[in-house]
Amino acid sequence: MIQKVVVAGGGVLGSQIAFQSAFKGKDVTVWLRSPASIERARPKFERLQAVYLSTLEALRPLCGSESAYPRGLVDGLRDLRTEEIDALQARVQKAAESIRFELDLERAVRDADLIVESVAEDPRSKQAFYESLQLFLKEDAIVATNSSTMLPSAFAEGMRDPSRYLALHFANSIWQNNTAEVMGHAKTDPAVFAQVSDFARSIGMIPLELKKEQPGYILNSMLVPFLMAAQSLLVNDVADAETIDKTWVLGTGAPYGPFRILDVVGLDTAYNITKAIPGTEKIAAMLKEKIDEGKTGVQAGEGFYKYE
Amino acid sequence: MIQKVVVAGGGVLGSQIAFQSAFKGKDVTVWLRSPASIERARPKFERLQAVYLSTLEALRPLCGSESAYPRGLVDGLRDLRTEEIDALQARVQKAAESIRFELDLERAVRDADLIVESVAEDPRSKQAFYESLQLFLKEDAIVATNSSTMLPSAFAEGMRDPSRYLALHFANSIWQNNTAEVMGHAKTDPAVFAQVSDFARSIGMIPLELKKEQPGYILNSMLVPFLMAAQSLLVNDVADAETIDKTWVLGTGAPYGPFRILDVVGLDTAYNITKAIPGTEKIAAMLKEKIDEGKTGVQAGEGFYKYE
Repeated sequence: MIQKVVVAGGGVLGSQIAFQSAFKGKDVTVWLRSPASIERARPKFERLQAVYLSTLEALRPLCGSESAYPRGLVDGLRDLRTEEIDALQARVQKAAESIRFELDLERAVRDADLIVESVAEDPRSKQAFYESLQLFLKEDAIVATNSSTMLPSAFAEGMRDPSRYLALHFANSIWQNNTAEVMGHAKTDPAVFAQVSDFARSIGMIPLELKKEQPGYILNSMLVPFLMAAQSLLVNDVADAETIDKTWVLGTGAPYGPFRILDVVGLDTAYNITKAIPGTEKIAAMLKEKIDEGKTGVQAGEGFYKYE
Repeated sequence: MIQKVVVAGGGVLGSQIAFQSAFKGKDVTVWLRSPASIERARPKFERLQAVYLSTLEALRPLCGSESAYPRGLVDGLRDLRTEEIDALQARVQKAAESIRFELDLERAVRDADLIVESVAEDPRSKQAFYESLQLFLKEDAIVATNSSTMLPSAFAEGMRDPSRYLALHFANSIWQNNTAEVMGHAKTDPAVFAQVSDFARSIGMIPLELKKEQPGYILNSMLVPFLMAAQSLLVNDVADAETIDKTWVLGTGAPYGPFRILDVVGLDTAYNITKAIPGTEKIAAMLKEKIDEGKTGVQAGEGFYKYE
């Protein structure tokens, strides 16, 4: 049973993975590179604490839509009694207090069952992190990368035990979009794959098992072509962003259109992905222009839309 | 003001356009090619009548999700009083009784303000229909095609008055997904474009105006690459249809995943679109196999999923 979890990195997803694991009773340590990284990470955890509390608060009484339901927080879909909500909110407070921040990698990982690598999305940063990590891992530790764009096979050979390495990929707003894509490389031990799937389930996620390596996993394999198609319509002046979003929302019943999704993903992330795809120069240029204006999405207060 | 509407064709969308227009108080005639076509169309209209009635019935009391709300039936998003629901249901009954079926094209269209062409998605069928249609139209009649795959510019030159011809494209489940994409060709009169937009609004649709011709309009320009990406994952054995759908639904909050959407669209339609896209042979073969087994989607009772 995976109980001691280290999340390496305190970014948007790293903080969510750590907070959700702590909420579900895991011993969670967040490893960060420097005191400055800790200072940057802290407000993210405070914000998550507030979001979890208010999300639970909004469940009294339940008259919401299924799709907005925080499936990662409560099991099943049902009305919650007041005392249950009280108990869940107490768990949120406990989670917030229990998370340890650690700068010393050895101290962070030496007794960890699972290390979730969520460091910068850059092969050299990940390589460097893995090299140090090898020195301190206990024998049966499992290492999972949350990388969105890199394949585990790219790093497996550098692992002391490649069979205990795989990808575990979370979606943003983990407490609501509670998916965890589990993807091994050719040499991942099926027993390790199953253990990580079970871990995902134990922290309120629905594990989505991939039968083979796939760049972009399942979600981004669909999301990227969809977002590219939407951006093509915009840069070719077929319609404006609002009309395109409205079309998708009204035409498919989805809660958000592509440009709202891009604002949530972040235009800098979208730009990095776009640059790697041939034939998307016009889209990349449009994103670059907005990034240069500081309009990188929801986090920045403005992207394709303005946010309070 | 567009009041007398002819819908040419009684297929899935033709019947919905006709029923929705009648529900919103238009004089609606459905033109059909033969008594056999009328026999095939009638059950669709009976089913729509039942769907409209039960959808309204489910609004007592309203505690549903915004995305499932029948925006085409009621204006705004609010609790409805019992008497309002009674009145709307009475309107459904009146609509069902008011729709005329007509085999004689001249009688059907001679005093029509708007003809919505929703005949078979085949250029020759449309061409032949337009040729006859020209003979009987009153001078200021507007002709709109609901074609999903053809551009108005392909037919405009065959029109007596190309400036009064354009595309008006509806989504399936019109009473809920109440979009109407309005798309002119280069010579469409802007005043006609505006009139058709107003007509769409008057039958409870949200007009989505395209600034130029775009194959696939807005919705299908995004839907097709998205569905292709999903089907690639399946035919390349990355994951099964259920896992892929679950990933999309949980990861984006959408009500349906791609394979549920394909079942609704119909696998035969998906197959026809796929055949036209280079490099999709494996997907086309997979669809063909299911079609040959009679598994063409929701309407057939089975597609990627089984339906009651």
